[in-house]
Amino acid sequence: MAGTGPASRRYRPDDLIGCTARLFERAGLDGTIAGAVADILVAADLLGYDTHGLQFVPAYLADIEQGRTRTSGEPEILNDTGGSLLLDGRMLPGQWVVLRALALAQERMGSGGHATVSIAIRHSQNISCLATYVKRAADDGLMALLTTSAPNNAMVAPHGGRSPRLSTNPIAIGIPTDGTPILIDTSTSATTNRRIERSRRTGQRLPGPWLVDNQGRPSDDPEVIYTDPPGAILPAGGLDMGHKGFALALFVEALTSGLAGHGRAAADGADKDAPMGANVFLQLIDAAAFGGIEAFRHETGFLAQLCRQSLPQAGGPAVRIPGDRAHQALSEQREAGVLLHPEIMQRLRPCLEKYDLEPPEALAG
Amino acid sequence: MAGTGPASRRYRPDDLIGCTARLFERAGLDGTIAGAVADILVAADLLGYDTHGLQFVPAYLADIEQGRTRTSGEPEILNDTGGSLLLDGRMLPGQWVVLRALALAQERMGSGGHATVSIAIRHSQNISCLATYVKRAADDGLMALLTTSAPNNAMVAPHGGRSPRLSTNPIAIGIPTDGTPILIDTSTSATTNRRIERSRRTGQRLPGPWLVDNQGRPSDDPEVIYTDPPGAILPAGGLDMGHKGFALALFVEALTSGLAGHGRAAADGADKDAPMGANVFLQLIDAAAFGGIEAFRHETGFLAQLCRQSLPQAGGPAVRIPGDRAHQALSEQREAGVLLHPEIMQRLRPCLEKYDLEPPEALAG
Repeated sequence: MAGTGPASRRYRPDDLIGCTARLFERAGLDGTIAGAVADILVAADLLGYDTHGLQFVPAYLADIEQGRTRTSGEPEILNDTGGSLLLDGRMLPGQWVVLRALALAQERMGSGGHATVSIAIRHSQNISCLATYVKRAADDGLMALLTTSAPNNAMVAPHGGRSPRLSTNPIAIGIPTDGTPILIDTSTSATTNRRIERSRRTGQRLPGPWLVDNQGRPSDDPEVIYTDPPGAILPAGGLDMGHKGFALALFVEALTSGLAGHGRAAADGADKDAPMGANVFLQLIDAAAFGGIEAFRHETGFLAQLCRQSLPQAGGPAVRIPGDRAHQALSEQREAGVLLHPEIMQRLRPCLEKYDLEPPEALAG
Repeated sequence: MAGTGPASRRYRPDDLIGCTARLFERAGLDGTIAGAVADILVAADLLGYDTHGLQFVPAYLADIEQGRTRTSGEPEILNDTGGSLLLDGRMLPGQWVVLRALALAQERMGSGGHATVSIAIRHSQNISCLATYVKRAADDGLMALLTTSAPNNAMVAPHGGRSPRLSTNPIAIGIPTDGTPILIDTSTSATTNRRIERSRRTGQRLPGPWLVDNQGRPSDDPEVIYTDPPGAILPAGGLDMGHKGFALALFVEALTSGLAGHGRAAADGADKDAPMGANVFLQLIDAAAFGGIEAFRHETGFLAQLCRQSLPQAGGPAVRIPGDRAHQALSEQREAGVLLHPEIMQRLRPCLEKYDLEPPEALAG
């Protein structure tokens, strides 16, 4: 690839985690929290979600440096009925907030005896790659639902509309099987902010009419998002099936902002000038309280295999189950090192220099 | 409309419920169960879900007459940890099974003190219109998730595949607001069996390439479903976004067949020749245990209004929220009577005659 710019390089996962944790710590984050954030970001890169891993470091650093992110402490429990809780993330890093919620939920399931635990969270910072968290639960044999919305952000139109009203409202689901877990992590919008930014940067159209311009016309041109007034992203399902994505986006808003009791109404009213952050909803389910974990794993594993064995579409590749590609990336990258797009190290380097840290050593090859 | 066949006629809801209940009772169903089934079927017609209301009566009668449906008794509790339960529906009518589960869940929320109650059910008969149940919960101020799958049925291909592997796996969600509830009831497939049957009957193509033929080619021709081997329905999202619908279909399978511990693996194995029926998952959430019901209603109502006020797409109608149309149909039909397609009364008439019952009186006009 000589002559086409710097090549992607591989790095030891532990080197990346150590170096990123030190960076956040020097910027002011409590050491334990810095480690948790670094761990989740590198976990995303390991799973191949490279738009939701170390890519975030410069933005997170800016939030810490400018006082938008709280640098120490724990989420606060605002309401607690045993199996259902409301937390205030107090603008702590989202990775720390969700990991603490995950630990709390597992505690309530273990010694607490609850088979289903639900936690709503307000005032979290960005939680990055949702799949990393539900994978941890699923690896522990628990089914997990994790979803988030940003009440201060509106990029997605309701079905049939052109005015942005919703965030991209991702849903992640981890499902244990008798093999690798099924890992779902998908937005309820036709495409994501990051994909639009990339299309705009590279001057390309999107693969389909996934946007609507400010005159209400379908569009594949990322520029329509940057007009005044802005256009919008269509809900998942696009022009003909967008009612399905819109419905799921409303479900996400209800689970996150509704249950947190603090969403777009609060952002429009009393809390107009307060930091909103992200709302989050986490639910863990232990199949032992239903038909049993063995029967659960047998059914989900059987189904996954049944789907993988489906004949492919004409000219298409073999059928994959959500999570198959991530698990393949994980096992490859654990061995060979994490492959980082050169852009990511380019963006990390000045941050490391600023805090007088050495960049991690690239692996040979 | 003279000369174009019989017109749709309106009927008093109570007359339809009474007449349908008597019909099921004469066919052998316990009186209380017959009333519950009739109530839910007419509730679907009242909400305008006319493909999922009285339309089902002849098929349900056949199931009763041929001994496939159990005619009396209660679902059996197989596992119970307070807030999480597994029920065996014992092939009782699905309407009775879900209404009993709903009552049980509300009991556990009230005197039981659980804020989130989850119930998995195996061996239910068909549960018809999911929106009718979540509406009842939402009218009582509870958020409800209801979903079902049929482990003996495979009509939908995995994303990228052509072999049918999944049922249409609908999801319904009821969300209380400070106005009428948001009512979501949508399949995780690109279209439904009933729409395909109708297209086939009327010799029309579907509005888009929502199917795949047995050679793996996208198709809008309903006939591709009836070949040997059969084609399949695409997951919701279709060709370019079908990974989202497929992911949600797997979520539904995990909640229903996974938690019930009894799905496609059981149907393929030990229980090959036993009746499978439908699996169901119901979850109720009380916002009081999170940020409070008032804050919840304020947020969800504000969001619904914000979406309704979105400017429409070019040349399109005003934006509607899921449930808006159903609530409008309900308030119109409660006043003016339920408008039944003539085909439905045509199919009911021989059933009524067989059991020596008078058809309900059509309203004048």
